[in-house]
Amino acid sequence: MTATSARTTDTGSADASSASSARRPADPTPAARVTLRPLGLGEARIAGGFWAPRQHVNATAAITQGRARLEEAGNLENLRIAAGVSSGEPVGPIFADSDVHKWLEAVAWEYDRRPSEELLEMQREVTALVAAAQADDGYLNSVVQVRHRDRGRYFDLPWSHEHYCAGHLIQAAVAQVRCTGDTALLDVAVKLADHLAETFGEDRRHDVDGHPVIESALVELHRETGVARYLELARYFVEARGHGLMESYGKEPTYFSDRVPVREATTVEGHAVRAVYLAAGAADVAVELGDDALLQALRTQFDHMLATKAYVTGGLGSRWDWEAFGDPYELPADRAYAETCAAIGGVQWAWRMLLATGDARYADAIERMLFNGFLAGISLSGTEYFYVNPLQLRADAHPDENRSPAHGRRGWFACACCPPNVMRTLASLDGYLATRDDSGVQLHQYAPGTVTADGIALTVETEYPWDGRVRVGVDAAPGPFTLALRVPAWAEGATVTAGGATRPAEPGYVRVDATAGDVVELHLPMAVRTTTAHPRVDAVRGCVALERGPLVYAAEQADHRVPVDDLHIDADARAGATHRPDLLGGVTVVTARGSSGEEELDLTLVPYFAWANRGAGPMRVWIPRA
Amino acid sequence: MTATSARTTDTGSADASSASSARRPADPTPAARVTLRPLGLGEARIAGGFWAPRQHVNATAAITQGRARLEEAGNLENLRIAAGVSSGEPVGPIFADSDVHKWLEAVAWEYDRRPSEELLEMQREVTALVAAAQADDGYLNSVVQVRHRDRGRYFDLPWSHEHYCAGHLIQAAVAQVRCTGDTALLDVAVKLADHLAETFGEDRRHDVDGHPVIESALVELHRETGVARYLELARYFVEARGHGLMESYGKEPTYFSDRVPVREATTVEGHAVRAVYLAAGAADVAVELGDDALLQALRTQFDHMLATKAYVTGGLGSRWDWEAFGDPYELPADRAYAETCAAIGGVQWAWRMLLATGDARYADAIERMLFNGFLAGISLSGTEYFYVNPLQLRADAHPDENRSPAHGRRGWFACACCPPNVMRTLASLDGYLATRDDSGVQLHQYAPGTVTADGIALTVETEYPWDGRVRVGVDAAPGPFTLALRVPAWAEGATVTAGGATRPAEPGYVRVDATAGDVVELHLPMAVRTTTAHPRVDAVRGCVALERGPLVYAAEQADHRVPVDDLHIDADARAGATHRPDLLGGVTVVTARGSSGEEELDLTLVPYFAWANRGAGPMRVWIPRA
Repeated sequence: MTATSARTTDTGSADASSASSARRPADPTPAARVTLRPLGLGEARIAGGFWAPRQHVNATAAITQGRARLEEAGNLENLRIAAGVSSGEPVGPIFADSDVHKWLEAVAWEYDRRPSEELLEMQREVTALVAAAQADDGYLNSVVQVRHRDRGRYFDLPWSHEHYCAGHLIQAAVAQVRCTGDTALLDVAVKLADHLAETFGEDRRHDVDGHPVIESALVELHRETGVARYLELARYFVEARGHGLMESYGKEPTYFSDRVPVREATTVEGHAVRAVYLAAGAADVAVELGDDALLQALRTQFDHMLATKAYVTGGLGSRWDWEAFGDPYELPADRAYAETCAAIGGVQWAWRMLLATGDARYADAIERMLFNGFLAGISLSGTEYFYVNPLQLRADAHPDENRSPAHGRRGWFACACCPPNVMRTLASLDGYLATRDDSGVQLHQYAPGTVTADGIALTVETEYPWDGRVRVGVDAAPGPFTLALRVPAWAEGATVTAGGATRPAEPGYVRVDATAGDVVELHLPMAVRTTTAHPRVDAVRGCVALERGPLVYAAEQADHRVPVDDLHIDADARAGATHRPDLLGGVTVVTARGSSGEEELDLTLVPYFAWANRGAGPMRVWIPRA
Repeated sequence: MTATSARTTDTGSADASSASSARRPADPTPAARVTLRPLGLGEARIAGGFWAPRQHVNATAAITQGRARLEEAGNLENLRIAAGVSSGEPVGPIFADSDVHKWLEAVAWEYDRRPSEELLEMQREVTALVAAAQADDGYLNSVVQVRHRDRGRYFDLPWSHEHYCAGHLIQAAVAQVRCTGDTALLDVAVKLADHLAETFGEDRRHDVDGHPVIESALVELHRETGVARYLELARYFVEARGHGLMESYGKEPTYFSDRVPVREATTVEGHAVRAVYLAAGAADVAVELGDDALLQALRTQFDHMLATKAYVTGGLGSRWDWEAFGDPYELPADRAYAETCAAIGGVQWAWRMLLATGDARYADAIERMLFNGFLAGISLSGTEYFYVNPLQLRADAHPDENRSPAHGRRGWFACACCPPNVMRTLASLDGYLATRDDSGVQLHQYAPGTVTADGIALTVETEYPWDGRVRVGVDAAPGPFTLALRVPAWAEGATVTAGGATRPAEPGYVRVDATAGDVVELHLPMAVRTTTAHPRVDAVRGCVALERGPLVYAAEQADHRVPVDDLHIDADARAGATHRPDLLGGVTVVTARGSSGEEELDLTLVPYFAWANRGAGPMRVWIPRA
């Protein structure tokens, strides 16, 4: 509804200072073929409730500690070495720079949420390190520049992650200029993107990085700068993939989503994070170019993923080996990989599909991923992380490596992709709450706070996800508009009350005519639900999962005298729910009748996201029927 | 009962030519604390029946082709390069030599089975290549010698496989001298073992190889040469492990069975092949040193493995990632790794435990592994192999790498450990049939053929495993003796007939007083059995497997109109069995009532070992109950 200041030029670098600086992540250009549009920065604000304390800890503890972690792990020193101001050999993985970039992105979004001089100082210092490490021609990957100087750039694109690091840098730069107005990192990003555009393409070096993310980043850079060549390069990277380029390096294309072109694929496969990042980038390309065939392919893939390759927690990726999607219905609870980053990538893809289509199923998927598969990746303290998010931990599980869940969450990892990814997601979470279109405003996720768009001002009050009531007050509006409230697919029997009348609200969006002074109340039933998997999911045959609202529940050893491994549930009995302010930072627990061997007993289940905060003992989401 | 010619000397190398040359693999010295002793070479011979055709194909096709495969894959050229008679860089994995050694071992055992000039010529040629590549001081690993000449020997023992290659060379050398009398490879082995003894030890370099096998090899070399230092070095390698030596290389000790000392471990963990090879070597050390505490620890570990970490097929290793054992009861059917080499290592370990203890459970385990987890690793053609042996393949399974079962069996692998391991196992299979002790002879595995020991001569006639009748004729005997026949644990209701009287035969060993001219008949019931897993095996909850005799059965898509993924079985209905000489080289199929959705139908199951010989389509061993 509002024109943006983005310019479109055919070639050349942008004058970054002239670009729009008040936009969310993944905000399409006015020309993009989308159904819904994100709100501007600051137009949706979470205040209190479930998420705000988590964002607060993310800001005050995680992001600040992140600066120190990056120093300890050597990521920042790598940049100094590449800049020539320090000596030695770089440490860590070849994509070490990307952790810095993701952290910088988190700093930027957090600055928008709650500006502080401390954040700005950290941002400036670390941005300067990144800028100093950049080669004269724009190339930047500190580990390759130093450790692999003899092998040269792009010597092993399937694994060398050079475009991947560039993508995260670009995303951080876009966030930085939007949130703080500082163009320092954008200057680096533009120089790097120009280098890429001069190096790669159909008529240049015909190649793609093994790890996607550059695609969505380049579209965002296009959106920010108006430079068409960045969008064109993103389109090229999406289209070049899927023709076995990895085979020219002697690599297996499946892992890299390089077996089938994106527009021909009917499912996701290979490395889960790579696959969903690629899909998110392809969605960005599709809407900017009005490529309906590509968008339709992505719908098919998303549907197939949700139907056959996603956990009830929204976790993605069944296999530890290659961190990959499994075959359809291969969804083991114990060996679920469900990388925290995959849930984040899944949210990013779903958000783009939601904007493109306005289909509530994508917002449902975002909710499921955020409250379960994503949130389990963070301790209640906010500073320890799971890399891997299984739906079961057995008795006598033996941790065999750094990322094993049996260790419990950890402050950092040798491969530290997840922690800064969590930070940037929590810091930018407000952006997923609402959208606008010509008719008005859509609320997709429920949290207390404010939403403003085009003169409409809403106040949302709710204890969600503990309570199913959501009260939306229309504080201001220039005239009548349509307020659309998402009714999750699980919320059978929901109602909406407006103008004194209560009516049923079917899953999807319930639309209410509203104007200033109105109060609209949504009531989502919070009965405990018993969920059974598709019969082809062999791993959980004869089991049920309990859900309540958007939350998946889990039985943890800490709440049971008998081994969790031997629990059975009386799935036909009525399950209860009790809010326990004292437990796990305040959670609603679910109780159900069950048994262990001959003994009947009460099962107590806690929200899955809260597991492993009392030690990482036996746990299971799927519980055998008695 | 018969003295061997093995000498014991305290130090120095052996005069190989004076050593015994008529012994099976893993034949303990007279001093060893064992209950049963292997027969000598040639004393048990399989003639016809189930196994002989497979051994014939192994000899005439697989072993001969193996020579060509080793040339094509570069293993032989690596040796020439190391010898300086060819130039270039070695190809393949750092353990490439071991494939040559295992193939040489297969040639030797096969020569014993059926001598031929062709085998001898291949043996002499390839042995000469191995000998020429050996360094002056005895060291030998062609890939390290050339590719890693700058890094030096033993630069990364967790992964460099130098002792592993040495172990396989030693095993081949012992087989060669025993079967052909040729000492050429034994000279290489002794020189290499002396080098190892001078280099490694408590007071020398304190270190172990990441991949065991050297332990059992050194004990065998001790048995062959009588040199005590080889046994001592084997003991050292067993004891040095389990104290985190791998951590000094920055590696995770669990994978390498280096977390807990062997004598303290209560289970197996980490890489499955490594773990069972280590256990087999430890068993060799235990019996030679009369170390009952070590043997008891190995019994505990074997029991725990069978109870919690072994598939119904005898397959070992639940995880693709790290090719590893899982946590207890973590036994997914679809993602079973169950490497063919792990079944072979499991047989080797079980055989040593059987000799040590005389406990029929170990012979039961050998049978289960041989007929299922091992044999599925070989095509009916005898020349194509599975590396990985899952118990389920889904519809739409997508092969994502060379070893994926969805590809079907393959003639060779980039990591080609399994094919020559299969060859040496089939060529030496006769050795697992029978043992002797002071009381007489024990038959552990049933195949038609002859068994002779200490003047006793038996002829065995049987159609096993298709038919449960085993007829043993005593052709000669110096006097009365005890004939012990194994009654498998699954054979409830077995009977034995001797001297005209039939009596029940309980699982374990049924012992019969016998003398020349007697005929003893064992009858093992061959009713189809319905097997349910332990309730903690979540992966197959609500499912049954069908077994008949020693064979596990599987439903394959080729025999069903409806998708195998949707089959259910009426587990309470009586299953039938029909021999089908036309099918899969002649197999007994099992039929059972079942359903798919609303439709009732007949399920037809084939022996698991025979799956994927009509294309690698959907298959499942564990079938959901209707």
